[in-house]
Amino acid sequence: MASQPIKKSAQASAEGGLFDSNIDYPNFGFEVTHQDKNSGARVGKLKTPHGTIETPNYIFCGTKASIKNVSPVQMKEAQTDIILANTYHLMIQPGADLVERMGGLHKFMNWNGPMLTDSGGFQVFSMGHGTCADEIKGRNTSKSKESLMKITEEGAIFKSYHDGAKLMLNPEISMDLQRKLGADLIMQMDECTAYQVTKDYTAKSMEMSMRWGDRSLTAFEKTHDGRQGLYGIIQGGVHHDLRKISADYVASRPFFGTAVGGCLGGSDEEMYGILEAIQPLNHPDRPIHFLGIGRIKDVFESVKYGIDTFDCVMPTRIARHGMALIRGVKNERINLVNSKFKDDPEPLDASMDIPCSRDYSKAYIHHLFKAGEMLGYQIVSQHNVAVINRLMREVREAIKNGTLDALRKEWLPE
Amino acid sequence: MASQPIKKSAQASAEGGLFDSNIDYPNFGFEVTHQDKNSGARVGKLKTPHGTIETPNYIFCGTKASIKNVSPVQMKEAQTDIILANTYHLMIQPGADLVERMGGLHKFMNWNGPMLTDSGGFQVFSMGHGTCADEIKGRNTSKSKESLMKITEEGAIFKSYHDGAKLMLNPEISMDLQRKLGADLIMQMDECTAYQVTKDYTAKSMEMSMRWGDRSLTAFEKTHDGRQGLYGIIQGGVHHDLRKISADYVASRPFFGTAVGGCLGGSDEEMYGILEAIQPLNHPDRPIHFLGIGRIKDVFESVKYGIDTFDCVMPTRIARHGMALIRGVKNERINLVNSKFKDDPEPLDASMDIPCSRDYSKAYIHHLFKAGEMLGYQIVSQHNVAVINRLMREVREAIKNGTLDALRKEWLPE
Repeated sequence: MASQPIKKSAQASAEGGLFDSNIDYPNFGFEVTHQDKNSGARVGKLKTPHGTIETPNYIFCGTKASIKNVSPVQMKEAQTDIILANTYHLMIQPGADLVERMGGLHKFMNWNGPMLTDSGGFQVFSMGHGTCADEIKGRNTSKSKESLMKITEEGAIFKSYHDGAKLMLNPEISMDLQRKLGADLIMQMDECTAYQVTKDYTAKSMEMSMRWGDRSLTAFEKTHDGRQGLYGIIQGGVHHDLRKISADYVASRPFFGTAVGGCLGGSDEEMYGILEAIQPLNHPDRPIHFLGIGRIKDVFESVKYGIDTFDCVMPTRIARHGMALIRGVKNERINLVNSKFKDDPEPLDASMDIPCSRDYSKAYIHHLFKAGEMLGYQIVSQHNVAVINRLMREVREAIKNGTLDALRKEWLPE
Repeated sequence: MASQPIKKSAQASAEGGLFDSNIDYPNFGFEVTHQDKNSGARVGKLKTPHGTIETPNYIFCGTKASIKNVSPVQMKEAQTDIILANTYHLMIQPGADLVERMGGLHKFMNWNGPMLTDSGGFQVFSMGHGTCADEIKGRNTSKSKESLMKITEEGAIFKSYHDGAKLMLNPEISMDLQRKLGADLIMQMDECTAYQVTKDYTAKSMEMSMRWGDRSLTAFEKTHDGRQGLYGIIQGGVHHDLRKISADYVASRPFFGTAVGGCLGGSDEEMYGILEAIQPLNHPDRPIHFLGIGRIKDVFESVKYGIDTFDCVMPTRIARHGMALIRGVKNERINLVNSKFKDDPEPLDASMDIPCSRDYSKAYIHHLFKAGEMLGYQIVSQHNVAVINRLMREVREAIKNGTLDALRKEWLPE
């Protein structure tokens, strides 16, 4: 059983803090089993009611309660440990009440392993401003979908992309939705600020996210029955001073886990700089999740700052465009639509013990994409998932053996 | 080893017949192991270089060298025995030469069981006139794609749907393409006439198809190396007298198998009437394939006239629209997009030992289709394939036990 006490020293830093009690997380736990000597990298065990996973690990995005064109059977075959679904999408279709009536997300999706949901806030804000990835990566975009109608202290009002209905999301509603969905790991409600906003706006938003964190905890505590572990989210944009205040806040509250969210800047250096800045302030006994980030390069860099779990749509999203993740090639991936693969008889990776990687020639997969056959997408998606899971297994071994830099060179040659 | 002699008595009926020699089909065979007492229904063994299958059986359409969104692994899991691919599509993308260089269709697709290709003619003609299904079923259509440019005694000239290039298909080219593709069972080149043409046109076309049959045999014999078995195709539209001439021709020539093609009329009765008319004329020692037909009802009706194999895109095509084949429901299928399945916790068929049929609720699959998730299509496609394979297993058992009518009532309640 994990119990997350309030760090009294840090608590005072959260202005307007409302929350002042302890929360037990029975059936949950996090144990660091190996700590790297030369960096913050660590191997751990993250225990949930649906099983214990080794960390660092990768949480695959089953946005609308489905990993895109990869079945749960195929996810297991690709040695997947944990997946996530998005509260925002599910509140619109099919609705959290229906998922609850069907026995919760695990049963609904037929996934019996650990699972995470986000608060829904991220999509509300990012779809209001532009795309999700644009927000995290700090890319400005003019294509506002204008689905976000209003943000107040109370919460966010937005329009459903499904039928235009006016919907509200706030900490209490998010906790209720996530309780009904029933994932093991859940997220506090926060505001995800855009790259282009001022520091002043980012600061005010971060402070509101802290108050929303306390409201999330209060709502969570009321119905908490030991089935879920709540993560607090560190905001603060690209500003280290703000990030530190937010990290201090999250560590001071009885969250089960720590998540790093929000805008992470316009360059890799800016992103990793944020991780470095908050690292000393993160609660030492809690798992740390990096929201929405997960290129192979990001995994190698971020584990050094103590990141335990990642999530990103990248593995299945790039598969849709014919891009396969390959160990040891430049830029992590190859584009199978490229005509140079037209008559390439070699499989994606003969060393992998899974049909999608081992049994189809690149020529065949190239043909499937040229012919518009969905099987191509299915094969490459499952392959990409299997590659990432292999990456995470190898990263864990390398941390244990102190060979992370050597492993990185194998995966990402200069 | 199967050897298909010329039936001398019938040979004279083929006007302008060119072909007058015997062809051996080493590595092929067809044996009727059980003959129904009350109908033409029979159980048999069809031997090919890639394995022996029991008949009646169903050949699933892998049009562009891929069963739509169902992998070979999943096809095997659904207990599939045999699949086909379409020469017309493959000659356009990726080209038969490339498939040959990649080791042939079996290796290219990673399917190690028996496989069939058609001549390519059907799609040339049907895409010239309208859709394939419209042609077979006798539905008139005004949406001519005008891809067919010219039909002469020499062959058909048509435009590639890929890049508009002018292409030729004739018996010699079709045999060459099918040899390169390398399927076990291949088809003679024929002309597939439309429903609306006159009897005179149908007769002239059928006579040309007979001459094309002989040209196919001549071309086939030149490079025949024992890897492929050639089917002749019975044409003649809805006219029983023409069908009988064509059936007599096919039986008179040393084809390995008999196929029933062309326009089959506007009603089920007309279609089954054609099967009844030709049944006494079909070569008794050869497998009979019914081209492009394969509803559950068709299977029950057609096996009574000695049909041994079926093919139809129906199982995977209807899956794309959310329709699942279900044993024992009206109209053979349910539409999972229908809102009545929104909160149906039951699986598609709990009695089937395969995850797609057993492990997902209808509510979940309904959600996947509402949310536009391809996993829904994947699940229902594999389910439909598994249902058809179960149907064929049960049909074979019922023929052996003389219980075909009782089985039909279980599958298709009035």
